[in-house]
Amino acid sequence: MNEMIQLMKDHRSVRHFEDKRLTKEQIKEIVTAAQSASTSSFVQAYSIIGVSDQQKKEKLAELAGNQGFVADSGHFFVFCADLHRHEVIAELEGIDLTESIESTEKFMVALIDAALAAENASLAAESMGLGICYVGGLRNQLQEVSEVLKTPDHVIPLFGLAVGYPAKRNAQKPRLPMNHIYHENEYEQDKDIYIQELQAYNEVISAYYKERTAGKRDDTWTSQIAGMFERKKRMYMKQFVQEKGLDKR
Amino acid sequence: MNEMIQLMKDHRSVRHFEDKRLTKEQIKEIVTAAQSASTSSFVQAYSIIGVSDQQKKEKLAELAGNQGFVADSGHFFVFCADLHRHEVIAELEGIDLTESIESTEKFMVALIDAALAAENASLAAESMGLGICYVGGLRNQLQEVSEVLKTPDHVIPLFGLAVGYPAKRNAQKPRLPMNHIYHENEYEQDKDIYIQELQAYNEVISAYYKERTAGKRDDTWTSQIAGMFERKKRMYMKQFVQEKGLDKR
Repeated sequence: MNEMIQLMKDHRSVRHFEDKRLTKEQIKEIVTAAQSASTSSFVQAYSIIGVSDQQKKEKLAELAGNQGFVADSGHFFVFCADLHRHEVIAELEGIDLTESIESTEKFMVALIDAALAAENASLAAESMGLGICYVGGLRNQLQEVSEVLKTPDHVIPLFGLAVGYPAKRNAQKPRLPMNHIYHENEYEQDKDIYIQELQAYNEVISAYYKERTAGKRDDTWTSQIAGMFERKKRMYMKQFVQEKGLDKR
Repeated sequence: MNEMIQLMKDHRSVRHFEDKRLTKEQIKEIVTAAQSASTSSFVQAYSIIGVSDQQKKEKLAELAGNQGFVADSGHFFVFCADLHRHEVIAELEGIDLTESIESTEKFMVALIDAALAAENASLAAESMGLGICYVGGLRNQLQEVSEVLKTPDHVIPLFGLAVGYPAKRNAQKPRLPMNHIYHENEYEQDKDIYIQELQAYNEVISAYYKERTAGKRDDTWTSQIAGMFERKKRMYMKQFVQEKGLDKR
């Protein structure tokens, strides 16, 4: 296993940072790494907003569900799906691109582009000895987040990436068994095998929680996911995305 | 700049592979690296289908728009947004999770999860001296692709990742200027600056194409994007995704 793969396998979220800001040079290095990621047909349909302003960081921490580490991070990046750029191109080129821009296909492209860039940014930061945590909680209140970041139509802030000097690193949660995530030549057709794999994983996760909580937490992955999905988070999303002019047709 | 960042900055697509398959060990290394990526609230809403069967590879190459390198690759991975797993969990836990599973929010989560994992897979492969190319062309005919891969409802094949021993590496296309992708504290509000940046980038891209084609290709980025968006690709996507039970509410 080489160093790069070792770094990936060693990844864990960091939610406790030292009180130290990233330098301009570090930020530049991270953003340039992000930009080096692949982009669908060269469309570059994403933007990154780097938040250093302390008031804004605190506001975003609050909007993300009072996640204090957002405010404490060395730098807070917000990754956005961005087709505003392409709307401006339509104006520049004197052509109507609305149908494309509003399509589900291009919405998907923008999400994928943003996530590919974000993962490069994360790994670049980690390779520099920094810690990271994705912050999906930003999607709790996207209207307010958009106002803080002044994003125009056709731009959706997708998630934050808190980066900083790690004060404490989380434990690594065991992932689904490789066989369950990875299928050979076609998707697993045998439902019994599929369910057996989930149940085997439940035992792994259950043991993990028990060990971490001295026996107090008795939970399985499937029950955790079921509970989470039952709470129906962020059901306003479809309307929000469409009002911003994306995923409409 | 450390080695990891150097590797990222050196990334370019590879569309010409030597006739050599990946080993099981290499595939395992790549998939494990993919699984080490962050996943939104631990939902792990993606799957990877690894295609080694030559007939299937050829069929997928054809469906992706006759991209022969898909068939020639050392291994062809297909990254899928996957909420089928969560549908099975609903059954296992005896609970109805339809509203969550069908939400735009969870569709976004699945896309982001899949893309984060894919970028780890790409970098892991590159760190092993392999070349990669994302294949968005799979989305040209997703119904047929789903049939080849036998994906169930709530699973959308998003893109392929062709991996193999590079026979020839593409040149690296210059990215948008960092200032244009990266905003400080809020999105750029000055449209003139925004347009100036696009125009400056047009000159960079124009020079790049001229140099690469001995003056034959005279193209700008904005005209290229305008042309691409005007062609309105994959407008069936919304219907397809919704028929698969995602992004519905």
